[in-house]
Amino acid sequence: MSNSYGKLYLIPNFLSDDNPDEFIAEMVRKMVYSLKNFVVENEKQARALIKRLHLKHSQQELHIWLLNEHTPKSEIPDLLKALENEDAGIISDAGLPCVADPGSELVSLAQMKNIEIIPLPGASSMMMALMGSGFNGQQFCFSGYLPVEKPLRIRRIKELEAQMYRGSTQLFMETPYRNMHVFEDILQSCTAQTKLCIACSVSSPSGWVKTKTMAAWKNEKPDIHKKPCIFIIGQ
Amino acid sequence: MSNSYGKLYLIPNFLSDDNPDEFIAEMVRKMVYSLKNFVVENEKQARALIKRLHLKHSQQELHIWLLNEHTPKSEIPDLLKALENEDAGIISDAGLPCVADPGSELVSLAQMKNIEIIPLPGASSMMMALMGSGFNGQQFCFSGYLPVEKPLRIRRIKELEAQMYRGSTQLFMETPYRNMHVFEDILQSCTAQTKLCIACSVSSPSGWVKTKTMAAWKNEKPDIHKKPCIFIIGQ
Repeated sequence: MSNSYGKLYLIPNFLSDDNPDEFIAEMVRKMVYSLKNFVVENEKQARALIKRLHLKHSQQELHIWLLNEHTPKSEIPDLLKALENEDAGIISDAGLPCVADPGSELVSLAQMKNIEIIPLPGASSMMMALMGSGFNGQQFCFSGYLPVEKPLRIRRIKELEAQMYRGSTQLFMETPYRNMHVFEDILQSCTAQTKLCIACSVSSPSGWVKTKTMAAWKNEKPDIHKKPCIFIIGQ
Repeated sequence: MSNSYGKLYLIPNFLSDDNPDEFIAEMVRKMVYSLKNFVVENEKQARALIKRLHLKHSQQELHIWLLNEHTPKSEIPDLLKALENEDAGIISDAGLPCVADPGSELVSLAQMKNIEIIPLPGASSMMMALMGSGFNGQQFCFSGYLPVEKPLRIRRIKELEAQMYRGSTQLFMETPYRNMHVFEDILQSCTAQTKLCIACSVSSPSGWVKTKTMAAWKNEKPDIHKKPCIFIIGQ
């Protein structure tokens, strides 16, 4: 069965448009050099990565399938066509496929078919944030996006703070245009001595990672509106 | 105050001795090229990375400080000397500093001193495992090492399975020589239809990532003894 399928490469993307080409490890470029089939979150973003990787085949020769939040679950098995007798790669809009990004449904299906999965080395903004936070990196949780509705969001933040005091550093994120609302809700919900780390555009030359107590953040409004941020509560 | 301190770079290391030089992004090499001061988990491992990065200064010119599980907490402030008027870098034995590795106490102290922290892009075996698992990567927890004592370990595995069914993919690891014990405990503790992913030597040419139900794993003993593994319970 599995003989008729190629390998599935999980290809890291840049984290930000201003990352230099050298942000992606040369090993990644070598390993995906001959690929023609790609399952991507967004065609334009994926083709931009492919262009910067200088692969063997021209853009016209490539076969591109879409897999994102608009893809009906029933169509995911069709994506296995990308792997029939050929290798394929998954590319998400930024960072690692499947980690806070689409891709895992196809990988899951591929695992069930005994298709060989090859995750390639690349950076994750979450891990860069966690490293830079100074918080406990032995135990941590990533909760994705918080609830949009304010009362639910505040309740969730309080739960995350309680979990953090039980020993596990808590990471989460927000759609960039809502960052300031979430920041205000965090300050309002957590106790003054609890620490908050904000990692803002962490991979960019203009990025930064700062950890302060809630009390200290109250005196310094960060410039995070519409900028990609990871929030971390920890100790 | 902070003017007297340099910047603190968090430097990713190889994940395995058989990774090629191109495993580390060229950007990392460029950013740390001129560093002379390093805070390291283990001198030999760190010097091996430094050698492969071909930095500006010879090994004899470098200043190396140790920070690992044997470092008394009271001596961590002394490590700030590495940053006095000069930049410094943290290097752990494998992968990312501070993530399931030493370093965070120094970063925490540096954050309090307003020292600029620069996390560099690099691979994490946890993220490679998570990508390859096919599990939900929108919400996940990493719990580090499980308890060594069998009854406590089994109780912990059951807790992790319950948390997973509440929506959060569960990652953990074990000292490699205990892998088979943990594998047996997982099979014994979880329900037959729960899925387990094992990512074994994930960054190596000989590495693999496989996801199966507990029922399926019972028919296939994996070759994981003394090999670095990440275990993931998910859906």
